Amino acid sequence: MTTTESLEKLHLTDREYLHLEHAAAALRWDQETYLPPEGVAERAEQLALLEGIAHERLITGDTGSLLESLGSVSANPRGDESLDPLERDFLRIMRRRYDRAVKLPADFVRDAARAEGLSQAAWAQARRNDDFASFVPHLKTMIGFSRKKAEYWGFGKETLYDGLLDIYEPGMGAQEIGSLFTSLRERLVSLLKKIQLCALPNTSFLKQDFPVAGQSAFMQNLLDYIGFNRGRGRLDTSAHPFTTTLGSDDIRITTRYFQDNPLSGIFSVIHEAGHAFYEMGFPAELRATCLAEGASMAMHESQSRFWENIIGRSLTFWEGFFPSLQNMFPQQLGQIKTEAFYRAVNEVKPSLIRVDADEVSYSLHIILRFELEKQLIAGELEPEKLPDIWRKYTREYLSLESETDKDGVLQDIHWSTGSFGYFPSYALGNLYGLQFSQKLKSDIPDLENLISRGNFGPLHTWLADTVYRWGCRLEPAELLKKVTGDRIKVNPFLDYIEGKYRKLYSI
Amino acid sequence: MTTTESLEKLHLTDREYLHLEHAAAALRWDQETYLPPEGVAERAEQLALLEGIAHERLITGDTGSLLESLGSVSANPRGDESLDPLERDFLRIMRRRYDRAVKLPADFVRDAARAEGLSQAAWAQARRNDDFASFVPHLKTMIGFSRKKAEYWGFGKETLYDGLLDIYEPGMGAQEIGSLFTSLRERLVSLLKKIQLCALPNTSFLKQDFPVAGQSAFMQNLLDYIGFNRGRGRLDTSAHPFTTTLGSDDIRITTRYFQDNPLSGIFSVIHEAGHAFYEMGFPAELRATCLAEGASMAMHESQSRFWENIIGRSLTFWEGFFPSLQNMFPQQLGQIKTEAFYRAVNEVKPSLIRVDADEVSYSLHIILRFELEKQLIAGELEPEKLPDIWRKYTREYLSLESETDKDGVLQDIHWSTGSFGYFPSYALGNLYGLQFSQKLKSDIPDLENLISRGNFGPLHTWLADTVYRWGCRLEPAELLKKVTGDRIKVNPFLDYIEGKYRKLYSI
Repeated sequence: MTTTESLEKLHLTDREYLHLEHAAAALRWDQETYLPPEGVAERAEQLALLEGIAHERLITGDTGSLLESLGSVSANPRGDESLDPLERDFLRIMRRRYDRAVKLPADFVRDAARAEGLSQAAWAQARRNDDFASFVPHLKTMIGFSRKKAEYWGFGKETLYDGLLDIYEPGMGAQEIGSLFTSLRERLVSLLKKIQLCALPNTSFLKQDFPVAGQSAFMQNLLDYIGFNRGRGRLDTSAHPFTTTLGSDDIRITTRYFQDNPLSGIFSVIHEAGHAFYEMGFPAELRATCLAEGASMAMHESQSRFWENIIGRSLTFWEGFFPSLQNMFPQQLGQIKTEAFYRAVNEVKPSLIRVDADEVSYSLHIILRFELEKQLIAGELEPEKLPDIWRKYTREYLSLESETDKDGVLQDIHWSTGSFGYFPSYALGNLYGLQFSQKLKSDIPDLENLISRGNFGPLHTWLADTVYRWGCRLEPAELLKKVTGDRIKVNPFLDYIEGKYRKLYSI
Repeated sequence: MTTTESLEKLHLTDREYLHLEHAAAALRWDQETYLPPEGVAERAEQLALLEGIAHERLITGDTGSLLESLGSVSANPRGDESLDPLERDFLRIMRRRYDRAVKLPADFVRDAARAEGLSQAAWAQARRNDDFASFVPHLKTMIGFSRKKAEYWGFGKETLYDGLLDIYEPGMGAQEIGSLFTSLRERLVSLLKKIQLCALPNTSFLKQDFPVAGQSAFMQNLLDYIGFNRGRGRLDTSAHPFTTTLGSDDIRITTRYFQDNPLSGIFSVIHEAGHAFYEMGFPAELRATCLAEGASMAMHESQSRFWENIIGRSLTFWEGFFPSLQNMFPQQLGQIKTEAFYRAVNEVKPSLIRVDADEVSYSLHIILRFELEKQLIAGELEPEKLPDIWRKYTREYLSLESETDKDGVLQDIHWSTGSFGYFPSYALGNLYGLQFSQKLKSDIPDLENLISRGNFGPLHTWLADTVYRWGCRLEPAELLKKVTGDRIKVNPFLDYIEGKYRKLYSI
């Protein structure tokens, strides 16, 4: 087989793997949006089968030998000039995916999937009953599976936890994250303590009745306003907002509605649209290949949090768009000034619950989880002791007392599914987002003006030309360097937060 | 391997095949309901891959040798008393499915699928442009593939067309259908000519504005009223109404809404609910096996058309339920009498379009198509001559002149996808439905009274205990015999139609 033929075969394997993943994504999307309640059990079997077939087709057949035969290339892809750079990146990512899949024994994968199902169900029940003890055995099991997985992969930089982090943030280890988070924590805790002494903004006008039909209609205006292409995507309702890719031209987002809180739905939509813009923005040459993915989980979060916070919670944005919201809810908001609305959407009010956190305290929730999961995976923290240490950290970081485990250590699903190493992405995304944003502002000095007029075209173009175009061809650090010329830093984010909130709270 | 082990393996193959078919059904459902427009191309690739994998997994592996090793059983399943009757039926149906799949060469399946895609697209364009000539080459290709398919299967009773009919209506050949249809046609044409001399009922009150939101809300009342379990199914909107099974507990129906015609949506919902009741009603022991299917396409239609026409277009039904419709549309219908509404929903007004046909003329549309497709497959009718002969038959059967091919021979999708042999199911379903209905009335003499009070429980129980319980374990003729003690007949249907419409039109 010639190199070209081998590559073509590998591309076919990749494409079929993607199709199966997209089919599974469609079933999962349906499960969260429209699936009749009693269809859940069989849907789980359908999904397990599809995932199993995708995995089996990837690792059997000639994927391994094709990667071997293109060996010199895939071993050191950047050294072989006979392949164009795109194919070299393709081989590197295929090799990574193949290695990850092939290194896990089939019975390990099956046992882990079964344990995960049980663990997630036990977590849901433990949370409902505020009964952490009943979840402990499952948590221990999931820690065990995660450690084992990192061992099989064997590519942790120094520790098993590094191996897990590498799934979500290739190239970044616990030590680097730890040092970034220490700097973040100090200044954020200090700012938060100052803000907690200040008077809260008036948010009473948000506590009115906002009928869901009106909110839902408004979302279509919002999507059109920020340039979401409804020919290639759609918005639905689910219990927890998410973004999912069902095909190159089929990117779906969801939100949820609360009749007494219009902000939750709105900012979820902007957040998820940020993810969707990334997924919709990969260039044609990456289409239907394994390169059409975000560079990392944190890079994805950088996009969603950029749109949600830096764009969506800015005065500039609402100068242009608040009239549209007033128009939908004239009775509730007709008399409210844009400035007052802006203050309300930036209310800082530490919460025990991560997903309800404001921009200032959000990262502190993440740092807390990072510290704990690092110790859990290292075996330095007994799972039984989690509730106490959770309370201690919550007190230190947020000056809050958590009364229940339900609103404490049991609030997030991640650990119950063994997703250790995922949490840092959220906070790292904030850092990347701010560094991109600085570069963006220097490239488009007129940006604020454009946004206040609802012209997002140049912003979309900039993101496509600098970030989206690479898919996952670059590691996160390379991408950041390519765009900003710099490595990851906490100061741009901290300066932005301090500048914005000192002004808002007259500190 | 013991017989038990072999059976277990075969059941696993069956279950996985079903899961893949259900996953494909979910993707197709999504395509008709929510898929963003630009996602269509990739969705087709996903579906082709899933169908290909399902087919491949069925015919490779040890399905064939398992069926062989259970050979004496599967060759003559009803003769072997060592297996329980359920397993014998399971083997028979598995064998049928396996034979159908394995007898078609892989390249034939692929070529046919590709040709079908092109043909369907050409048909859609030809219909838009009212240009039959441009569709002729594709029609010829599809006739060729259908003939070839029947040859591969080699189980046509006497002709190739019999082989195709057998897919949809096992055990029934063209000769038997032809003779039923001749009797049907004579009396229906004669009744129709008489009705066409009568004054039409008043339907002006239906030509008002019925906002879609109100219609859609009403449908939820309708579903609850007739006992549709929304824990195991749901209703959505699509361009053409359909029912699809995504899992044992996930049966979905769709309808469509016209603002100036509330009846279309309502009767589509009742029709599709009739299909859904059947799919939801298979007993637990058939769950997630190949036996959990309707006995045939016509048996399925017998259920949908029974609910739509015999229940849904009866005076009794609306005596109980018209107040609910009036309640949703008080301005439009508040002053209308139930009897007037009943007359309006039974208006007989022959249409060129099959899907718009009333109960009297509907079967004539089917008979026309049967006559033509039988000749097409036999090679006795040149496709080029279809438009002329279509006009001739339309004149004879319906006393209508079709001006365009778009509203004539091009109106239905079936032939463009090679579904020759499908059409008769619709009319045969009417016959089965009436025969069931007679038995039902003799088993539940109080039925009308129950229905007028909205009590459908005994009806659901009767259908479950007599029809649904068998899944596809019995051939249609066996099922009919088991339930009614009789073979298929036209008179019950004709007597019902003549009785109802002579009274309505005072003939």
